[in-house]
Amino acid sequence: MKRVLSGIQSSGKLHLGNYFGMMSRMIRYQEENELYCFIANYHTLTSINDKELIKNNTLDAVIDFLALGLDPEKSVFWVQSDVPQVTELTWLLSNVTGVGLLERATSYKDKLTKGLTPNVGLFSYPVLMASDILCFGADVVPVGKDQKQHLEMTRDIAIRFNQIFGETFIVPDSEIEKTTMLVPGIDGQKMSKSYDNAIPIFTDEKKMRKRIMSIVTDSTAIDEPKDKDTPLFQLFSLFLDENGKKELSDRYDTPGLRYGDVKKELFETVWSTFEPYQQKREYLVNHLDYVRDLCQKGAEKASTVATTYLNKARENMGLHY
Amino acid sequence: MKRVLSGIQSSGKLHLGNYFGMMSRMIRYQEENELYCFIANYHTLTSINDKELIKNNTLDAVIDFLALGLDPEKSVFWVQSDVPQVTELTWLLSNVTGVGLLERATSYKDKLTKGLTPNVGLFSYPVLMASDILCFGADVVPVGKDQKQHLEMTRDIAIRFNQIFGETFIVPDSEIEKTTMLVPGIDGQKMSKSYDNAIPIFTDEKKMRKRIMSIVTDSTAIDEPKDKDTPLFQLFSLFLDENGKKELSDRYDTPGLRYGDVKKELFETVWSTFEPYQQKREYLVNHLDYVRDLCQKGAEKASTVATTYLNKARENMGLHY
Repeated sequence: MKRVLSGIQSSGKLHLGNYFGMMSRMIRYQEENELYCFIANYHTLTSINDKELIKNNTLDAVIDFLALGLDPEKSVFWVQSDVPQVTELTWLLSNVTGVGLLERATSYKDKLTKGLTPNVGLFSYPVLMASDILCFGADVVPVGKDQKQHLEMTRDIAIRFNQIFGETFIVPDSEIEKTTMLVPGIDGQKMSKSYDNAIPIFTDEKKMRKRIMSIVTDSTAIDEPKDKDTPLFQLFSLFLDENGKKELSDRYDTPGLRYGDVKKELFETVWSTFEPYQQKREYLVNHLDYVRDLCQKGAEKASTVATTYLNKARENMGLHY
Repeated sequence: MKRVLSGIQSSGKLHLGNYFGMMSRMIRYQEENELYCFIANYHTLTSINDKELIKNNTLDAVIDFLALGLDPEKSVFWVQSDVPQVTELTWLLSNVTGVGLLERATSYKDKLTKGLTPNVGLFSYPVLMASDILCFGADVVPVGKDQKQHLEMTRDIAIRFNQIFGETFIVPDSEIEKTTMLVPGIDGQKMSKSYDNAIPIFTDEKKMRKRIMSIVTDSTAIDEPKDKDTPLFQLFSLFLDENGKKELSDRYDTPGLRYGDVKKELFETVWSTFEPYQQKREYLVNHLDYVRDLCQKGAEKASTVATTYLNKARENMGLHY
């Protein structure tokens, strides 16, 4: 059984893009693997400096995960800052990480190009990410294409550390999603909070209906076949199995389809898919002590593993005098 | 009573330059201040990657300090890596530290000029230093001129953090040594391990005598007055009070002085000054468990303070959800 690790940055209200992009995958992982999953609030500090926002985003992300089925009995699930060992390992690793390696990071260069004034946290982000991974002895890290380079850095850092100080870390493999799930927003662009085109998962019925009814469609006449390379079709497909997709595809090919009908059906599907989770979420929101307790227990499990790897690294670097 | 903080990098065998440059000052500080003093082995990692060397240097530095009179009852004395809270605070602070600030650090630029391939630890050294200081609520940090810029960075970081997240840290003052103690080596250059011109403090009698007898002197004839701007005179002065200095100065002005005699006297002085410490050092070397126990107790005291400041910072940044 492989140890799969994933950290998720909490960035506010969960939407379908987050869910199909990463969360649902994580929740599936826990069935077949040893899943280590954490809410990456140390990372959030590199771009947000609002105390309440950080707190609320963290707690929201925890609750979303738990509501959607992440099982803290099957997985190790924690909030990053509850296991501060990773920051110590970050310092240790930074001494075997070349400044040049970080300067070549594409995502950092992109941020500079956009005119961001970089802070040291943003710059050394890949070292913290390496620490997140190596501290828990992960075998596999599922990443999107945009994170592939960071994972290669983690491998470089682990290999270099092992060469200099002796075998200490597992060199992790990446698992790049081959079929990156395309989740369009209601305007057809990639679904993203920053484009204001997202369909939130946990919201009231009226708002969700309104949101889904405003998915952009084209002006093809009713008695014409419809284009399937469109956001409404793509969004609906996410909820369908092969048979369902075939059926919807046939309806698109057949004259007479009304977009309004499809939208209503999509709303019913989305609503009925998430309604049970919505109830669980409500429960958790009303039992925050229980939620915090689960986090605490997860952190304790994660802590034990982190301490093992950290102590190996400390010993091999000569910090145990 | 002010809280004075100082971290010392352990770099091998202690010599007169280390002693008069920093150590003796620290030991005096403990009488009039609340002294927080640590062996900076996390910092050493930025330049040394040899496990045994790091271990031995750390332990040697601890023993040297204790032997020379640092009193762990009067001061808080610990090994940096025994209080890992500073690495967590380093991560927090790095998010309010501009990359540009670090790039402008003179000592970093100097190292680049010398052709060093910089690692991230070397680059972000000033953030760890800021953390070392802010984590313990230091009022005053005595530094040499070469560290003045780093201390200004610490102040910048503290002020910025307090502005963004609310009052959290004490903004420390620097205390630049006005009369930087000139400690020449036996060749007249600044005493330094790397110039191989040092007079070690803890060594055997024969070696110390040999070292002192080989201090360079000029070829002024015996019946001429002697030049006082010379290493032998300067080294001897370190051990003399005003009267003693006056007396030696008069002898230099009077024809007939033999350098060999002065060297013998200097040897007697150095030897008798450090012999009692040498015995204490021997004792400590033979009681390493006792030494480690003192370090442990110091780390516990330091840890309590560090946790207070760290938790304030965590709370103010929104990590307590």
